Amino acid sequence: MNNIPTLPNTPAVTGRSIIAGRPVSGAEGTHRSVQPVDGSALGPEFGFVGAAEVDRAARAALECFDAYRAVDDERRAAFLDAVADELEAMRPQLVERATAETGLPVGRIKGEVGRTGGQFRLFAREVRLGAFHGLRHDSALPERQPAPRSDIRQRRIPLGPVAVFGASNFPLAFSTAGGDTASALAAGCPVVVKGHSAHAGTAELAGQAIARAAARTGMPEGVFSVLFGSGSLVGQQLASHPAIAAIGFTGSQAAGTALMATAAARPRPIPVYAEMSSINPVLVTRDAIRADAAGEAAGFVGSLTLGSGQFCTNPGLVFVEATDEADAYLAEIREAVASSTGQTMLTASIRSAFDSGVERLHGAGATTHAEGEAGAGPNAPAPRTLLTHAATFAERPEMHEEVFGAAALVVVYRDEEELSRALSALGGQLTATLRMTEGERDLAFARRLLPQLERLAGRIIVNEWPTGVEVIDSMVHGGPFPATSDSRTTSVGTLAVERFLRPVAYQNLPESLLPAVFADPSLPRREDGALVVA
Amino acid sequence: MNNIPTLPNTPAVTGRSIIAGRPVSGAEGTHRSVQPVDGSALGPEFGFVGAAEVDRAARAALECFDAYRAVDDERRAAFLDAVADELEAMRPQLVERATAETGLPVGRIKGEVGRTGGQFRLFAREVRLGAFHGLRHDSALPERQPAPRSDIRQRRIPLGPVAVFGASNFPLAFSTAGGDTASALAAGCPVVVKGHSAHAGTAELAGQAIARAAARTGMPEGVFSVLFGSGSLVGQQLASHPAIAAIGFTGSQAAGTALMATAAARPRPIPVYAEMSSINPVLVTRDAIRADAAGEAAGFVGSLTLGSGQFCTNPGLVFVEATDEADAYLAEIREAVASSTGQTMLTASIRSAFDSGVERLHGAGATTHAEGEAGAGPNAPAPRTLLTHAATFAERPEMHEEVFGAAALVVVYRDEEELSRALSALGGQLTATLRMTEGERDLAFARRLLPQLERLAGRIIVNEWPTGVEVIDSMVHGGPFPATSDSRTTSVGTLAVERFLRPVAYQNLPESLLPAVFADPSLPRREDGALVVA
Repeated sequence: MNNIPTLPNTPAVTGRSIIAGRPVSGAEGTHRSVQPVDGSALGPEFGFVGAAEVDRAARAALECFDAYRAVDDERRAAFLDAVADELEAMRPQLVERATAETGLPVGRIKGEVGRTGGQFRLFAREVRLGAFHGLRHDSALPERQPAPRSDIRQRRIPLGPVAVFGASNFPLAFSTAGGDTASALAAGCPVVVKGHSAHAGTAELAGQAIARAAARTGMPEGVFSVLFGSGSLVGQQLASHPAIAAIGFTGSQAAGTALMATAAARPRPIPVYAEMSSINPVLVTRDAIRADAAGEAAGFVGSLTLGSGQFCTNPGLVFVEATDEADAYLAEIREAVASSTGQTMLTASIRSAFDSGVERLHGAGATTHAEGEAGAGPNAPAPRTLLTHAATFAERPEMHEEVFGAAALVVVYRDEEELSRALSALGGQLTATLRMTEGERDLAFARRLLPQLERLAGRIIVNEWPTGVEVIDSMVHGGPFPATSDSRTTSVGTLAVERFLRPVAYQNLPESLLPAVFADPSLPRREDGALVVA
Repeated sequence: MNNIPTLPNTPAVTGRSIIAGRPVSGAEGTHRSVQPVDGSALGPEFGFVGAAEVDRAARAALECFDAYRAVDDERRAAFLDAVADELEAMRPQLVERATAETGLPVGRIKGEVGRTGGQFRLFAREVRLGAFHGLRHDSALPERQPAPRSDIRQRRIPLGPVAVFGASNFPLAFSTAGGDTASALAAGCPVVVKGHSAHAGTAELAGQAIARAAARTGMPEGVFSVLFGSGSLVGQQLASHPAIAAIGFTGSQAAGTALMATAAARPRPIPVYAEMSSINPVLVTRDAIRADAAGEAAGFVGSLTLGSGQFCTNPGLVFVEATDEADAYLAEIREAVASSTGQTMLTASIRSAFDSGVERLHGAGATTHAEGEAGAGPNAPAPRTLLTHAATFAERPEMHEEVFGAAALVVVYRDEEELSRALSALGGQLTATLRMTEGERDLAFARRLLPQLERLAGRIIVNEWPTGVEVIDSMVHGGPFPATSDSRTTSVGTLAVERFLRPVAYQNLPESLLPAVFADPSLPRREDGALVVA
């Protein structure tokens, strides 16, 4: 009965952005997703939005900010649960579209749908737990000398609308309905997503899930928008829009540092949480190799080639002590790599960056160590390992940069001093992995090395592989620059909600003015110096 | 028996920097503190240090970082308590020197010594509480399908060496031994202070207290240094030094944003916690005036002129509804200001900035409302109030900047919409204050306004005045830009320790490798999703 366009009744890719709950056809050029497996285009055509729509989405987010942050915890949690329900209900559509747009296998995408819904449920649980409010209370001391103290309370409130830029390599779990969006919504921040053009259809479907859940649970419409448009134009406009209060980003170091610069240059700078670049060093001890050289090699090459090496935590660097065992290990790796086959990468440009990255390592003096077979289609390069010495590695910054894909550099070191110098040359990392025995030699080595690994990375792993990120309370998917723009947090796990909050103190407020959370005795808090859990 | 210089046996100003526990005479020019009360110079002469000494202090901090962060909680807390002991033991010397260097009254400085020691004791308590470790644990699930989950733990570790730039207006509580230093040391970060030249002697004494406490409690020497040198040279070198991992700053917006730019432009950017600029709006309701116009005026003018108006939370802005009551209130203010006398400001340049700030307000169209008497000496300008209308205020950015000192702008507004527009024009603030009754009109007004005040400021105060900052768990001395560079935290109160920490996850580590804190059952933690307090 009215002419305002509405979301389709069943999940469907329509080529439209979603602004404050309504589909919007952009008129600033068109775009089609491309199937990386054969380079063919996918329908329908997306109409790119321009500056007016970006402005509209950002304003709608700001306009509903006070209303959304006033939604009580249970209703906000119900909204997050509803997003999970909607995502799971459209699993067939998501799997079909995401596999076509990314070339990733069906099993992987099925798992990612589950993880993405699971993230929303985890943040719903986090909202219900209530620790994110950060409640603190110091009682009035009317008799204190020389001056009385009044009642002071503290809680955390959301920062404001958050702009989210999703990743190419996780079309669901790190994209439109990914961890940044889930944690920002959990914190009480409206979200405006710049939909990733490489998987625009998946992004539209995920956006429909969130918008539908928001409508169904009575959230204000401006709480969520997803925009399709030129990456640099929409991205820069969002990052500099006065309504935007924080940025979540997963992608390349170049794009991440560009957002950091834009955010820092604003009249009022805002925080940027960019997860960017990591080569995830693995250290394999002599005794671990002695115990099982073939197993160590198979585990490493499996982690290296998983998903065509397109994980933020892909092990791109292996340190091996120069011993006889190392030769056996290198031979096992060579065999495993040689018998591996390339899988289709996400996009043609990611594939070509892979080639340039391998070139860069060669240019810096690394030699070819092993090479597998290229896969079918234009974008499935052969997995490979390259070799260098720690002394060379320490001096060649080109060797410290990520090669996104299934290529790793094996670094042979003579002694611990050389190893330590090589590790010191590295920038911050998401992970650092030790492959070791529990023999005395290895334990002593690990104890000496741990402080350096803590300074280097956000997550330290023993005898597992880095490509596997649990979505739990204790996860850290973060680390010092350039792994991320901000080492003080994580983009995976419940701690991520804290990125979008800031403390506010309330001094001497009459009870009738105090925010309701202070009156809820079930919420964890700090009460006159003591931690209180109901 | 050796020639390495040592600290004097009793607290004494010697004109030397302290690097890693040793006094150092700089040779890059000399400096003397000036008594603002009469412009006379104070002995002894300080020898400014240069690039070599800055580098030495920063390296010493980094070299001892792993050793210092490995110190267990009880020993670290004992160190912080020892700093408080040392500060309190040199109270006579601190009071004499700080009053001479700042022109602040003896009573105020005595109180500040107590507060400064108290801050160290509070952070000692915070270290012993152990919540700062941020412990989280998710147990292994060996039977989980489709894949088992391993044991994962999280704790927070310190960021690394912190550079601290103290404030002019708090020679103790926000300076060498101030809250930034105390919270960074509590977090496990070594500290390098750029001593404030305006109160170099006070800074040297406070530095001796910390260095002596560090020696007495067996801390590594590099844990603390204080450097005297050219502000721009030493400051920029420290902020860009690769060993420095974070910055704490209290001062002007110009200097703060310069540090932010330097930190963002580093090859590896670091966090900056700059507390910069706030004019601390006060809203006085019609009914509050009706209840006690004279009391409201006296309270406001008392807060405005306290300490010559040199508080970060000085009320520089008063909003009054255009009513008959407002006229009575303005008349009372006029009377109170007229009978006030200027007190000596901290430095000649701060006094001259005060004059320019008042000029700026006049230039933007504010009219003189009231003026007191100038005090004795060259640096004690007359307190004053200026007057403007909300519509003018909203459109003149010059009126939104701080005038540091005893000058306030009274803004008369016609209706709430005009008030809201004026508040929206303001940048972020440390505080926002409501002076109100508990009548229905005022409560309804306050309820409508609170969301906007929360977005505006870090602390909301009812029926008290902003110039009074408790050092407690629930305090927020922070707020959106430009009040600070980072609204996500506070520079006063125990929450400040979190500024200098970052999370690290430990996946599948054998028990013998896990950091000892994980084995301490007395520490608060999150255990498989549940909050646990011993």
